[in-house]
Amino acid sequence: MPLALGLSALLLGGAADPQPVAKQEVAYPAPGEIVAAAPAADWVEIAAKDLLIMDLAPDAKGKTRRVVIQLMPAPFSQGWIGNIRKLAAARWWDGTAVVRVQDNYVAQWGDPTEKKPLPEGMEVMSESGYTIPFSFNHIIYNDGSEASIPSPPFPKFDRVLPQDSYSVGSGFIFGWPVGIQGGMWPTHCYGMVGVGRNLSPDTGTGAELYTVIGHAPRHLDRNIALVGRIIEGVENLSSLPRGTGDLGFYLTPEERTPIVSVRLGNEVGGLPAYEYLSTESKSFTQYADARANRRDPFFIRPAGGADICNIPVPVRRKKV
Amino acid sequence: MPLALGLSALLLGGAADPQPVAKQEVAYPAPGEIVAAAPAADWVEIAAKDLLIMDLAPDAKGKTRRVVIQLMPAPFSQGWIGNIRKLAAARWWDGTAVVRVQDNYVAQWGDPTEKKPLPEGMEVMSESGYTIPFSFNHIIYNDGSEASIPSPPFPKFDRVLPQDSYSVGSGFIFGWPVGIQGGMWPTHCYGMVGVGRNLSPDTGTGAELYTVIGHAPRHLDRNIALVGRIIEGVENLSSLPRGTGDLGFYLTPEERTPIVSVRLGNEVGGLPAYEYLSTESKSFTQYADARANRRDPFFIRPAGGADICNIPVPVRRKKV
Repeated sequence: MPLALGLSALLLGGAADPQPVAKQEVAYPAPGEIVAAAPAADWVEIAAKDLLIMDLAPDAKGKTRRVVIQLMPAPFSQGWIGNIRKLAAARWWDGTAVVRVQDNYVAQWGDPTEKKPLPEGMEVMSESGYTIPFSFNHIIYNDGSEASIPSPPFPKFDRVLPQDSYSVGSGFIFGWPVGIQGGMWPTHCYGMVGVGRNLSPDTGTGAELYTVIGHAPRHLDRNIALVGRIIEGVENLSSLPRGTGDLGFYLTPEERTPIVSVRLGNEVGGLPAYEYLSTESKSFTQYADARANRRDPFFIRPAGGADICNIPVPVRRKKV
Repeated sequence: MPLALGLSALLLGGAADPQPVAKQEVAYPAPGEIVAAAPAADWVEIAAKDLLIMDLAPDAKGKTRRVVIQLMPAPFSQGWIGNIRKLAAARWWDGTAVVRVQDNYVAQWGDPTEKKPLPEGMEVMSESGYTIPFSFNHIIYNDGSEASIPSPPFPKFDRVLPQDSYSVGSGFIFGWPVGIQGGMWPTHCYGMVGVGRNLSPDTGTGAELYTVIGHAPRHLDRNIALVGRIIEGVENLSSLPRGTGDLGFYLTPEERTPIVSVRLGNEVGGLPAYEYLSTESKSFTQYADARANRRDPFFIRPAGGADICNIPVPVRRKKV
């Protein structure tokens, strides 16, 4: 990791230091207020078919526990996501369980026996799918097809955050956080859902999934496929008891949380519609800026920056 | 947030792109293996008086729940920490409770009534204590005294990470993670413990404390005092049910987790000794490099960097 700045620059860098805010001058809205005020046109509805609904067994008090996952759009991880659609259609996860909860890391679910036969027609993926190569004005999809993106100035990346510890930049595209460096890849932020795998060159099938329940383990970027994010009910996984075995695996079957069913959203009756704040919208730009420069009343010194996982893309139930 | 790099640099930055690892050439140890192999001389024992032991009421199955907090050394936050010592000596927290658990953010504890009288002699702190100013070769302490640090080349900062989203640099000093920009300040990483407060210019007394249980909310740096970190038992807070009120506060007293007692470590019998890996040691340098460049067998592409909160300082029970 090269030192890009000399120590003297680090120690004497007072000129760039954010100054305390003069509170009385302007009323700055909080990020949540910006989101609440965003016009309806800035929101994008998520198709029910792109949701994965996981119902866990009720808790000890009988409370239902639903986890709602949004699957990633093309060009991201479509092979794995195709497998996940097949697994859900085959009701493959019904009767499986949450098998692992490791504090400040991941909750993971799948078949505890690791012997349940997979459905027919599962695609075998390769690690080349971890990173999406692209040149200046188009994206090359996993299946070889290409899509043009308006350029210049590449507007979908106009919220690039250059100060990233894991790449020369990070940004948002199609509503998702990505690292950018000779290509792009989704980032392991809180609540992101990925494909468990064994050692390389195994890249996992999609049958074993996990979600991030702690500080972003960005070292997993480009080493595991991400396929979606939890948009509701993450607390039903993040507040589960931690496993006491190696890597947070539960030592006994009784400790596991049973999975009642996993279905694609279009197979579930009575589901609310969900929508996310377009990362191409002016509201999102304002929101991201406010996340990086908190000036609402509690704050004394705006940070002057934010890492991409501290700018979660707002998702909500669509107002009816 | 200025764009320090043009988009072309971002998109064409392939030269700096970490390459896939040739697996067979060298066996790289995992970070945990480096820590396990660190010689005894690289570990620093934590004095019992610098520990704060919080015992929560047992869980529904009767399991005891202890949270062990290491208080920060000078020059950090010593006024607040002095108050915390007084509160513990006065048994002030006994009978208080965990009042708030907000997913992907914080767990917070203190007096639910907010009316319990504080002990005599509490110090009133100011926000100037959030940042530790220093010049090239010495630190100015909160109380005005100064300590010299060997220079050049300022060896205690030789693990500075320049790619930080929140400052021109970040690093480790005295075993703690800090942001660096015209001064230094502790960073809001997972498990760090801070002082709850109301609106500015209130800076909190230390009676209301919280810990980070999600992605690092670094926007709180320099806006709240950090006073320590949880070195054991964080899962007893991070796996609690989330509060359903605003900001994750519990809506009913029954939902709160009672605090049986909070004591300084030197007042608790039978406590194991704890030690942390010196951030000035060669082992820590190797560990930090391995966190930023995972080359152990699971990994395909080392990240080439890490944010400071993804390099947690190793702490363990001292081997006897």
